[in-house]
Amino acid sequence: MQNLKIVLIGSGNVGYQLGCHFFEKGLQVIQVFSRKAEKAEHLAKAIECDWTTSLDAITTQADLYVFAVHDNSIAEVAEQLAEFLPPDKIVVHTSGATPSTALQPFFQNFGVFYPLQTLSIDRKPNFVSVPICVDAALAETQKTLLAIGQKVSQQVQVVTDEERAVLHVAAVFVNNFANHLFQIGATIMEEEGISFDLLRPLILETALKIQDNAPANMQTGPARRGDESTIQRHERYLEKFPDYRKLYTVLTQSLIDHFKK
Amino acid sequence: MQNLKIVLIGSGNVGYQLGCHFFEKGLQVIQVFSRKAEKAEHLAKAIECDWTTSLDAITTQADLYVFAVHDNSIAEVAEQLAEFLPPDKIVVHTSGATPSTALQPFFQNFGVFYPLQTLSIDRKPNFVSVPICVDAALAETQKTLLAIGQKVSQQVQVVTDEERAVLHVAAVFVNNFANHLFQIGATIMEEEGISFDLLRPLILETALKIQDNAPANMQTGPARRGDESTIQRHERYLEKFPDYRKLYTVLTQSLIDHFKK
Repeated sequence: MQNLKIVLIGSGNVGYQLGCHFFEKGLQVIQVFSRKAEKAEHLAKAIECDWTTSLDAITTQADLYVFAVHDNSIAEVAEQLAEFLPPDKIVVHTSGATPSTALQPFFQNFGVFYPLQTLSIDRKPNFVSVPICVDAALAETQKTLLAIGQKVSQQVQVVTDEERAVLHVAAVFVNNFANHLFQIGATIMEEEGISFDLLRPLILETALKIQDNAPANMQTGPARRGDESTIQRHERYLEKFPDYRKLYTVLTQSLIDHFKK
Repeated sequence: MQNLKIVLIGSGNVGYQLGCHFFEKGLQVIQVFSRKAEKAEHLAKAIECDWTTSLDAITTQADLYVFAVHDNSIAEVAEQLAEFLPPDKIVVHTSGATPSTALQPFFQNFGVFYPLQTLSIDRKPNFVSVPICVDAALAETQKTLLAIGQKVSQQVQVVTDEERAVLHVAAVFVNNFANHLFQIGATIMEEEGISFDLLRPLILETALKIQDNAPANMQTGPARRGDESTIQRHERYLEKFPDYRKLYTVLTQSLIDHFKK
């Protein structure tokens, strides 16, 4: 594994952060691909390797090919690579939403290397705390991917396609939907001319609290304590935001139902 | 203000943390009240002051009386105190959900001292980053409350009853409802036998990202990118959690609507 050569296919949020972290941890990325020259070059410069904007120009000299492309490009890119890549190469994707078997029609030695985190090019995450979920068709490849994972993260485990599908749904709730609620909070404050900064510490503390507690034990608020009059007051106020009022009612009922069980 | 004497009425989550922080910052809490002796004594020992379980035994020697009782006890406690407290005393509550005018029938010099944070007895917050929202009937009292706020927090401002009502609704979205989504994530993982620890770093990063970004700019996920096939796959999976499926659909639609505008 020490001399394992890696090609990164995709230089977006995931490709960029993964590439930088691989480089920092001494893994050998030898080439990066992006359809956009600017993006490919940006990453290649950061991690001192070659780059290309042409799939045909991807080197066959690497051992591991890591797809960090959009979910709906995986099959198309795989098909093109399969035309010239030798069949022993390890090919993995980094998607939470796509089964490993999306690569199966094209490669024998396929797998997944999924960093479970929200990644952005312009924000360096604390990568060692990012859980890495790996899976592979071949047991030996699974070992290789676990070893790579352990080099870059404190939390690495084999997660099957079925488990990763569940993880992805749960991640939508805790990340995408939670962020949508933060945006609703921001919108309400903005419309009323109050600074969203007043709510930012509360949001951070809400997340910090559940780092070592079960969320259910941390639940507070009018729905949790069955405070009907506050709920009604909030719903009256929200008449000026009909969409948010609907969400308020549905989420309040869901909370009440959860704690009635 | 240096010699201002304070009585804390209530030794629950808010009373306890406020009392401890006042003490640390050199403010003079001379007595705490709780109906439960154990709670009153616990706080009083921590901040080296007297305690009582009887409203009648509350001292008249203080300048500022801080209510940290349940929202629906505020009027009742105020009524009892008003029977013997001299009319010049400053009386404030710490509630986000209650207008300052809840104290008006009982006191002339009333106000609010609202720490906008989710507080628990067993978790010491980083109090200097907790925004303090103050308001008062008298301008001079407002100044006094601002000065106290500035002693204990970096972010203190006058927030009117109307603004605080808005803040409270927004706080329900970003704290109570977000935590409910975290619990849903935890429940799904638990039911499938996957560790919730895999999602904890994602939740923390989601909150950290918006400490210096607008939530709308940080939005990702299938609803944001209009990925219908992933949404449908998630909805099919969620058929085993009908309540969560309903929430998924409503939140997805709300997200789509937001970004269509």
